[in-house]
Formats: sequence, C-alpha cells, structure tokens
Amino acid sequence: MFENQRRTELHDLGEFGLIEHITSYFKNQNKESVFGIGDDAAVLDFGEKYTLVSTDHFIEGIHFDLTFHPLRHLGYKAVAAAVSDICAMNGNPLQILVNIGLSNRFSLEAVEEIYSGIQIACEKYAVDLIGGDTSSSPRGLYLSVTAIGCVDKDKVTYRKGAEANDLLVLTGDIGGAYMGLQILEREKKVFMEHPEMQPDLERHDYIVGRQLRPDARKDVIQILAEKEILPTSMIDVSDGVASEIHHLGKQSGVGFQVFENKLPIDPQTVERAIEFGLNPSIAALNGGEDYELLFTIKQGDYEKIKHHPDMTVIGHATELVGKYNLITESGNSFEIQAQGWQHFQG
Amino acid sequence: MFENQRRTELHDLGEFGLIEHITSYFKNQNKESVFGIGDDAAVLDFGEKYTLVSTDHFIEGIHFDLTFHPLRHLGYKAVAAAVSDICAMNGNPLQILVNIGLSNRFSLEAVEEIYSGIQIACEKYAVDLIGGDTSSSPRGLYLSVTAIGCVDKDKVTYRKGAEANDLLVLTGDIGGAYMGLQILEREKKVFMEHPEMQPDLERHDYIVGRQLRPDARKDVIQILAEKEILPTSMIDVSDGVASEIHHLGKQSGVGFQVFENKLPIDPQTVERAIEFGLNPSIAALNGGEDYELLFTIKQGDYEKIKHHPDMTVIGHATELVGKYNLITESGNSFEIQAQGWQHFQG
Repeated sequence: MFENQRRTELHDLGEFGLIEHITSYFKNQNKESVFGIGDDAAVLDFGEKYTLVSTDHFIEGIHFDLTFHPLRHLGYKAVAAAVSDICAMNGNPLQILVNIGLSNRFSLEAVEEIYSGIQIACEKYAVDLIGGDTSSSPRGLYLSVTAIGCVDKDKVTYRKGAEANDLLVLTGDIGGAYMGLQILEREKKVFMEHPEMQPDLERHDYIVGRQLRPDARKDVIQILAEKEILPTSMIDVSDGVASEIHHLGKQSGVGFQVFENKLPIDPQTVERAIEFGLNPSIAALNGGEDYELLFTIKQGDYEKIKHHPDMTVIGHATELVGKYNLITESGNSFEIQAQGWQHFQG
Repeated sequence: MFENQRRTELHDLGEFGLIEHITSYFKNQNKESVFGIGDDAAVLDFGEKYTLVSTDHFIEGIHFDLTFHPLRHLGYKAVAAAVSDICAMNGNPLQILVNIGLSNRFSLEAVEEIYSGIQIACEKYAVDLIGGDTSSSPRGLYLSVTAIGCVDKDKVTYRKGAEANDLLVLTGDIGGAYMGLQILEREKKVFMEHPEMQPDLERHDYIVGRQLRPDARKDVIQILAEKEILPTSMIDVSDGVASEIHHLGKQSGVGFQVFENKLPIDPQTVERAIEFGLNPSIAALNGGEDYELLFTIKQGDYEKIKHHPDMTVIGHATELVGKYNLITESGNSFEIQAQGWQHFQG
C-alpha cells in the first residue's frame, strides 16, 4: 500500500493534504455507503431517508485552552460543532456519541461541568446522547464527538452542486470567534505577567461568546425548509470562510466572486481587528470557528431570503473554475487565499 | 443539574460508576433513538432495519504501548474492537469513522502504517472508512473509532434477554490477550535493563498475536444466522468474561453458573499463567481484550452448536438474580468477581 521509505513531516502536508493522501487508498465496498470522506458528514442509506454521520475531536492545547475556556462551555461547543456538520448537509441532527479522555487532574466535579454543557446543548439542539467511551489519559483532556442525523434523500446538500451565477449566502456574521480568541489570548498573557489584574472581557462579550460558546445553525435549516429553499451546495464555517469558499468551488467546479462590502461583520469584530492591526475583512474571511453556514442558492430563490436579517448574499458563483476573488469597494479584485487551520504547522 | 461542591476523584467511581452517574441525567428525546447508553452499541431506527452505532478510543500510555505495539497492528486492532461492538448486537458492520491525534514525533510514514492496518481491517471486515478528523496532539497518539452497522429489527440482540436455563456460550478461547500483554511487558522490562538482549516472543506467538492484533467475530454472527440461532443476550469480551457475565446477568435479571473445566483456554495461555504464578482460570475470566462473543441461547438450540469447534457452552443462566458462580472440577463454588479494566485507578 504505502512504499515511501523516508521521513516526511506532517506539517509539510497539512491536515487537508494528509487526509487526501490517506483516503486515496480507501475504496467503499458497501452499497449503504452513499458518500464517504470529503464533505461535512458522510451519507448512508439505511432506509427511507439518508443517515448522516460526522465526527470531530477537541484536544487540550490544540483546539482549546482551559485557562480561559470554562468546561461547561467546552462541552457545549463540542456538541455544537458536531451538530453543525449535520446541519451543513441540510440534515436534522438527532444523536451524538461522546468519547472523553481525562488526566487525573480532573475531578468528578470537573467532568460534571463538561457533561452539564453537553446536556444543555443536547436540549438546545434536541439531540440524544446515545453512547461514548470514557477513560483516563496520561495528560490533558480530549473530547471526540460523533453526530448522527437524517435528511430526506432529495434534500441532501453536498459541497458539490453550485453552478455559475448561483448566489453565495452566509448566515450570521463572521470573524467574531477569531477575534474573541485574540482577546482571550491577550488577556491570558496579561494575567500571566500581572496576576493581580482582572481580565478585561466585558467590553468584548459578543466576540468572546462566539469563541467560547458558538451555536450551530439548526434554526437556519428549519427556515430553509419552511421557505422551500434547497441550497445547491453548502458547508459550515469551521476553518474560515476563505477556506470554505475554496471547498465549495473545488467540489462544485466553479469560481466565486465575493464583495467585501457585503461581508457580515459585527462592529465588535471590526473594532478589535483594527485594534490588533488586522484588516477586518481578512480577519473575517480567515478566522475559523464561527459555525455559520455558507451556501449557494438559485437566483430564483433570492426573493425568499432578501429581507431575512440573518442571511446575507455575499457574492456569486462564476464559470472561472478555481478563481476566488474578493472585490473591494473601490472595485479592485484580490485572490482569496485558503489559509484554514493548519494544525500540523511546526 | 449537578450540585456536588467537593472534589471527588474519578478513580473512586471507576469507569462504569462514572458512566452510570453521568448518563442518569440524560433523557432521550427522539423516537429514532431506540436504545442509547448501556449496551455494546446504540440502536437507532432510520428505516427498515435498525442502525447500530458504537464508539471507542485508544490513548497511548493507557490502552497501548508503542514500544511493543506495531502501528499497523494498532490500526487493525482499533477497527477490530469497534467492529466487535456491532457484532455483539448481532449486527453487520458496514462503516467506520476514525479520529487521529498525533504529536510531532509521528511522521507521514508512521501515519501510513496506522492507516495500512486500518485498511487491512476494513477489507477483512468489509467495512468502509467514511470519515474522521485528523490533527496534531501535544503529546502521544490517540485514536477514536466509531463503527456503524445494521441488523434486522427482529434480530437485534441486547445484553438483556437471557432467561433462567438459557445456555451460556463463548466463542474461541479467552485469557490469551491478557497473558500476551504480560509477556510483552516482561520483555519490555528486560529490554530496558539489557538492551543487548533480543525479546523472546516466538514461543508466545499465539498469545502475543491475541494482544496485538485481535479479531472481531463477524464470522460467528454469520454462522448464527446460517444456523438460525437468535441469541437471547450477547456481549463482546473486551473487559474480561467475568465482567461481561455481570453485565449480562444485571441487565437480564438472572444469575449464571459457569463450569471451570468448560472454560476454553489455549495451552499457551495456561502455560504462561502458571509461569507467572496466576491461576489460569482466573487469568482467563479476568483478562480483557479477547474480543470473543459471550451469548446465551435457548436449550433447544444446543444441537445446532454442540459440534462447532469454535463455540463452547461454559454454563447456564439461573433464577438466582445477581449470583454469578464458578463451579470447580471438585464441585466447589466461588463467586465470580467483576474486575474489568479500571482505567481510572490511581
């Protein structure tokens, strides 16, 4: 199978490169496996509807920092992120399984805090905790969450499917989770150097909340169903809008033109980006973990969403395959780079 | 939800205690969730058949030791363990999802070894790799595997269902994986103290193989179907037969009587147990990770399996609820203690 004899560092491939390399060796054997790796969730055929399954993990020191992430919010966030993947297939989330590894620095009370957040999220999204594995770990905390859902067979929405001239729609606002993280890391640094100082978070409640306790847009899936809109392609914003635009474009075989002045960015996000010396649009495009939905619709559906306060048309698909451009207010065009989260960077 | 203010150590509860404590706060909300936590896999209703889902994790330093566990075997074992859970519900495994966290001591070539083992297991069990999450970890390797399968609604086999006088059947032999681990740990210790010495593993190939590269008994599920045997209860042997007997008994509301001279133990297991000063029967009952199946059948089905070389009737269910006894050759009776794997022990 693998005949490479030298040592290749993982950060030379990056996460997407690794996944592509490994999965090229696997072929599906069962007719029930409709779609495997390469979208927000796998699509399985066990009956009248399609079953959707997705899994994510959260490792202390990589995905979260417990010096500022309350355990309850962490449990909530892990469920929200998993549920978001099911929503991104236009699906209805129904169940989750949670694996937890805990070092002996965690007491029962700490574990209860995590599960308390998991329970709040289960109630919020109406999903059932149906399984999991629990054990100690030599160091730190890790969570692995699998989400399951279902979708009518004619309603499943993949990353592929966008066609030229389809409108590109984004829910909510973006960049907040990323700027919230910058604030939390700055306050942590201040606290480490000056333990007598209180962290200054109140002014940043919105963006800090976006980072610590994001929500999955299950509500948007319900709105789309009510308005009888079937997106032509869809993805959730976990790695950043820029990266997600590349995914939709690559899998659909289209390009995208995005208008900078249409990007929905909260004033707190804009202010903090400027304070940190960042271009707010770049922060918004590249910041991850907003868990908003990015999707394309036919132009004929525009009327159904144009007045919705939580959905913004930010651009459209083009025939220029592989070209992803940001058009500034002055009319200049810049290529949108997919940075994503590079977990393997050295 | 949780109102306990003091610090309770996890090892005071143990894994089963923790799971019971936490899950008592969760209630299922969706009709599709037929059965949640408390069996080898969850049972979901998405159509004509039931969907089965189970998840396990494998943490370096807790579940495996890379100084003697080849990465390829580790990948294989992780899949086998997950598939085994689906088999234990009388199900047909179909898909897996794999999350991997890797510290930077792992190269691409090391990751390829893991996935090579995963691929061999996928082919062996005819399951498809349909998803997963990959990232770095601050230390060590961890794997989290979710398995999915299906079963006819009238064939699903729970841990509950055994009735008094049902026969208790075990596949293959037991205790080998545990004694294999003792050998591997002894040779590791010798190697650490005398690096010039070669490990002495050849004489122990069977039991070392049972530890490093166990197999799920998908073949047994097929045999049961061919022989038209529907077990009344079933579990896989991951924590040790003694512990699994307690699970079947507790959930079915029966007792069990097990005959020591019926326990299927390989001669290598017996020899090594004696060498280590252990009672072979105790090692066989308490050693985990054999991934055999333990199930009960109606007495009327006895004729169908009595000549099968891979199935052994080791005892029967009784009306003495909660009484689990081992009957020795001399006719003495001992209580079977459920030790299980106590991952949280200090």
